Amino acid sequence: MAEFVDLRSDTVTQPSAGMRAAMASALVGDDVYGEDPTVNALEASVAALFGHEAALFAPTGSMANQIAIQLSVPPGEELLCDGDAHVVTYEIGAAAAIGGVSTRTWTPVGGDIDPDVVIDMIRPAGYHAVPTRAIAVEQTHNRGGGGVIPLSTLETLRAASSAAGVALHCDGARIWHAHVADGVPLRTYGALFDTLSVCLSKGLGAPVGSLVVGSAEKIERARVIRKRMGGGMRQAGVLAAAGAYALEHNIDRLAQDHAKAARLAEALAPFGVVAGAVRTNLVPLDLRKSPLDAHTLAAAARERGVLVSVLGPNVARLVTHFDVDDAAIDRAVDVLPKIFRD
Amino acid sequence: MAEFVDLRSDTVTQPSAGMRAAMASALVGDDVYGEDPTVNALEASVAALFGHEAALFAPTGSMANQIAIQLSVPPGEELLCDGDAHVVTYEIGAAAAIGGVSTRTWTPVGGDIDPDVVIDMIRPAGYHAVPTRAIAVEQTHNRGGGGVIPLSTLETLRAASSAAGVALHCDGARIWHAHVADGVPLRTYGALFDTLSVCLSKGLGAPVGSLVVGSAEKIERARVIRKRMGGGMRQAGVLAAAGAYALEHNIDRLAQDHAKAARLAEALAPFGVVAGAVRTNLVPLDLRKSPLDAHTLAAAARERGVLVSVLGPNVARLVTHFDVDDAAIDRAVDVLPKIFRD
Amino acid sequence: MAEFVDLRSDTVTQPSAGMRAAMASALVGDDVYGEDPTVNALEASVAALFGHEAALFAPTGSMANQIAIQLSVPPGEELLCDGDAHVVTYEIGAAAAIGGVSTRTWTPVGGDIDPDVVIDMIRPAGYHAVPTRAIAVEQTHNRGGGGVIPLSTLETLRAASSAAGVALHCDGARIWHAHVADGVPLRTYGALFDTLSVCLSKGLGAPVGSLVVGSAEKIERARVIRKRMGGGMRQAGVLAAAGAYALEHNIDRLAQDHAKAARLAEALAPFGVVAGAVRTNLVPLDLRKSPLDAHTLAAAARERGVLVSVLGPNVARLVTHFDVDDAAIDRAVDVLPKIFRD
Amino acid sequence: MAEFVDLRSDTVTQPSAGMRAAMASALVGDDVYGEDPTVNALEASVAALFGHEAALFAPTGSMANQIAIQLSVPPGEELLCDGDAHVVTYEIGAAAAIGGVSTRTWTPVGGDIDPDVVIDMIRPAGYHAVPTRAIAVEQTHNRGGGGVIPLSTLETLRAASSAAGVALHCDGARIWHAHVADGVPLRTYGALFDTLSVCLSKGLGAPVGSLVVGSAEKIERARVIRKRMGGGMRQAGVLAAAGAYALEHNIDRLAQDHAKAARLAEALAPFGVVAGAVRTNLVPLDLRKSPLDAHTLAAAARERGVLVSVLGPNVARLVTHFDVDDAAIDRAVDVLPKIFRD
Repeated sequence: MAEFVDLRSDTVTQPSAGMRAAMASALVGDDVYGEDPTVNALEASVAALFGHEAALFAPTGSMANQIAIQLSVPPGEELLCDGDAHVVTYEIGAAAAIGGVSTRTWTPVGGDIDPDVVIDMIRPAGYHAVPTRAIAVEQTHNRGGGGVIPLSTLETLRAASSAAGVALHCDGARIWHAHVADGVPLRTYGALFDTLSVCLSKGLGAPVGSLVVGSAEKIERARVIRKRMGGGMRQAGVLAAAGAYALEHNIDRLAQDHAKAARLAEALAPFGVVAGAVRTNLVPLDLRKSPLDAHTLAAAARERGVLVSVLGPNVARLVTHFDVDDAAIDRAVDVLPKIFRD
Repeated sequence: MAEFVDLRSDTVTQPSAGMRAAMASALVGDDVYGEDPTVNALEASVAALFGHEAALFAPTGSMANQIAIQLSVPPGEELLCDGDAHVVTYEIGAAAAIGGVSTRTWTPVGGDIDPDVVIDMIRPAGYHAVPTRAIAVEQTHNRGGGGVIPLSTLETLRAASSAAGVALHCDGARIWHAHVADGVPLRTYGALFDTLSVCLSKGLGAPVGSLVVGSAEKIERARVIRKRMGGGMRQAGVLAAAGAYALEHNIDRLAQDHAKAARLAEALAPFGVVAGAVRTNLVPLDLRKSPLDAHTLAAAARERGVLVSVLGPNVARLVTHFDVDDAAIDRAVDVLPKIFRD
Repeated sequence: MAEFVDLRSDTVTQPSAGMRAAMASALVGDDVYGEDPTVNALEASVAALFGHEAALFAPTGSMANQIAIQLSVPPGEELLCDGDAHVVTYEIGAAAAIGGVSTRTWTPVGGDIDPDVVIDMIRPAGYHAVPTRAIAVEQTHNRGGGGVIPLSTLETLRAASSAAGVALHCDGARIWHAHVADGVPLRTYGALFDTLSVCLSKGLGAPVGSLVVGSAEKIERARVIRKRMGGGMRQAGVLAAAGAYALEHNIDRLAQDHAKAARLAEALAPFGVVAGAVRTNLVPLDLRKSPLDAHTLAAAARERGVLVSVLGPNVARLVTHFDVDDAAIDRAVDVLPKIFRD
Repeated sequence: MAEFVDLRSDTVTQPSAGMRAAMASALVGDDVYGEDPTVNALEASVAALFGHEAALFAPTGSMANQIAIQLSVPPGEELLCDGDAHVVTYEIGAAAAIGGVSTRTWTPVGGDIDPDVVIDMIRPAGYHAVPTRAIAVEQTHNRGGGGVIPLSTLETLRAASSAAGVALHCDGARIWHAHVADGVPLRTYGALFDTLSVCLSKGLGAPVGSLVVGSAEKIERARVIRKRMGGGMRQAGVLAAAGAYALEHNIDRLAQDHAKAARLAEALAPFGVVAGAVRTNLVPLDLRKSPLDAHTLAAAARERGVLVSVLGPNVARLVTHFDVDDAAIDRAVDVLPKIFRD
């Protein structure tokens, strides 16, 4: 897809030359036996980044999220989350189908959270009604347009969750972007959650890999769940090496992706289709008031060399990432407004 | 509990003498072999009431609902329902834990439905996001205070569901009350839904039993699911006989329960705690603006001989039913206002 | 089916007049609220019979077994049982589908058990292999032909299970028959098992109902599982009354059923089709060396007024029970040999 | 672990220099979008190797097996397999816990199969008993000691399975070894099975990766199941490149591993501990008649620089593989007999 400006997702990034070199020379071992030194080092360093005791490498963010959900919610009990959350949208029903976890969802409000609404949904332990055992938030929020939940909101939610004995999980696939956008230290985020999942293969540019972060006790149980889900890889150090490289080189540069997203948003502002303030690398487009629907937009953009994601009949999304350079943004900024103008 | 006016739920009703006589003389057989004549007759007559091909007797409304959900939604796919629906509140997570069914919920609005909100939540079949396979509504709505969803709303939802290839299920545990309150024929309701569950042991006064109603093909599959869930009873005709008696004698008299509920609502109106219009046999109390919380109210009422349900810290509920006669209502109408006045 | 001698199963028994009277006059309450006095009394008396702390009424033996399995085995862990056990044959995959419980089975040997084979299958807790958490035995064994597992075998198994930290469950749907056949007190059986399921609606003649028996802690958890499975009935006392009547009147008379089965076995002995020694109320027929297959036998018997169960292409079964009197046995003893002779 | 002769498993192999180079230069894309050219090429070539329409890359052999099982067996229905099969031993109960699949197992006989025993276990579709939907065999058989099931046995099983409408799955993690040992073409094996799983990271030496092989229709459904299980990786081409390299370079050389295993078996033959004929790269040790138990043996061997697997109190295993060269075998052949002699 090199001939296209690929704004569909930051999942399409290719490993850089330096990252490939790190993979090629990685020390590896059998990670099912706990003997892969590169995996072990990555797990320790990610745990430390978030101030937690332990972390576990997983092949995907979906598996990392689902492991975390199973850690906190027994079958037949309840997880609360946003109705547009990745965990109930793009993980193919795994919480229910694999974990037996019941979900109740709050109405999405563009990725942000009204903590009162969420807290009001918590149901206590007891015989009659399903008890709430965990709440999941998504930082930044994918379908919510890459918005950053304010630290104070998360603190309110944490306090209420703790008071109610309910776990708090962060789907932090793009928490790096929140960290860069709001300047909140990763450890500060880490301190708010019982578990987090973080992804190396979206904005950070590694080919494969996510981690679950939590207490040593939880991560020990996570290892069993990961094996049951089919995530117990052998010489996973070849992947972890890419992740370690990404953490070292690619966090700070996310600010450039945010700036590029802002350029896209600015270019499209006149058409009234940008949904909400663009603060990170996602540019959500709400086309309900536009003459174009999402499929028409995507087809027209593709014809002009730009790839765009369709998230619904009237919802599209642009994403900036490692492999979208300034020239590519120039091209998109040139092309996309024309489509709306035509 | 004879010394109390038991307004906790219509589930507490006792079989009447006539009903007991019907049970004692019921013809029975082994229903796992399909040979119980009383069960077979009840199933046929309930199917006919709703204009469907077939019905299946089940020991509880929860099992009837869960069978229906499993009939329409494969593991890992999605059911939409109200966040206060019985199926995600009081069935102990069975949709997820037993059926592997993912649930996404709309924000409760007192038992009514905004069809646009619901229709907007439907997600299409496809590889990336969880496809919506069914929508469940509850008529009347228990936690919604016994409100009756207008026929026109249900028709709008049916049209949109059909257009999207999504099944529509009715948790009709108290559909009899809607039928009596709005005068909508049961067959008219039946025509709107792919499946219904209906309950014999709440307002209708039978000791045990619900039915799933649907097409012959669905009910044949339902039989297997019922057996897997442990609902394949043997001489169930002893229960079905009570149900048949209830259908014959106890539907029309629900109007009396509605009138009694209206008396309770009227008596409590001055205290601003009755949530919404009381149209059937449930009187929901919203105590957020009252000096009394729900536990305090229930304790005070119990001391005065009246039993009340606590549904949340500030939510209580009164329910009229077969075993609450006029004298009992007189007593409750005398006692309850005093508590608020004190 | 009154015109037939129904030897298909003891599940076809009809409630007697006395039992119907007991049901008609039963005191009842809402058992979901724990307020049905007849259910509570039955649960207490069955717990006491087996020397356990508590018991829980369930609509079927399948539900009782599955609740017990879920009590002892978490999802993804392991139950060992006979390959012909009811729990992996006739419960429609519920252990896996509902409990997520992995089953490994030993090769059936006519209902008996070689304890060394079973003990050798136990796998320890640990990260790599699925840990064994429970063993289920069936006393008497349905597909095993109603054989009685000797007390000494069960004691050996108990000792090994305890040593390995593995729970022992008894599917005791027909434990009453073992008790009568071997004279082992029910409390002696009770002392051997962590949980038992016992059935009121087979040999004992009640229309509906089984119980799970175990510790108070287990039965408290069982109540939640029962509700999730859809087994939380309301005025279940109408059924429990039949069960209590059955326990009082129908245990000792099982000896008559055993004698009748012995008559059937004796009548068929010349044809070499009776599989194993007939000790209780089941007469298993192995037709592999007979010119008749099971369907042919069943059809021929039905033509002559006798109903027989087909369990496999060459496996049939005769069952004596409450509703098969001496005259009926005379008729079967007259008819069945003729079929083999023809 | 370079200082040890690691005979624990062929999962410990390290990617060679050539394989690392292939990974470093792999063309990649987003495989969730179906755009990774290296993954696509690997899937096509593995499908072709076995004469099937399609294949799907997965992070582990466990996930590949479990996807295949879910493809053929709906929740609540049945898989038959060996009691020592990897799918019920080392996959942490996933068939039941994730797929809801009930398992019934035949008694292990050293990795071989008595087809009559298996065929006799098949249960037909129907309402009463759990229907058998698939049979899984393991070629070569891990806990069975690396034995090779004869082609004629598999053909008998295939014919019976087809006649009964039951699917046949091959856990072919080490099917390469069977192919090399018996000279049976991979396509001949492929033709026998509805689905196969094959592993690149055991004998073939790739760091990570397995594939499910089957019809185009099945693999399309497999893609959804893989995503639900958390196996939808992004630039998986970095792993697939290693797999493609392994297929090209490392199949024929398995004969060397077999020869090395034969040397180990010969060296231990005098002590009567080698279980069965050693035909591939696994040397199973049955220590029941030996004065050494498995943990003692493993500890003693480790002290002398040789790593051995403990599979049970009296069961150990030696495995030869890519990273065990002739010098290493010399050392093991020198060291291990001494331990038994001492």
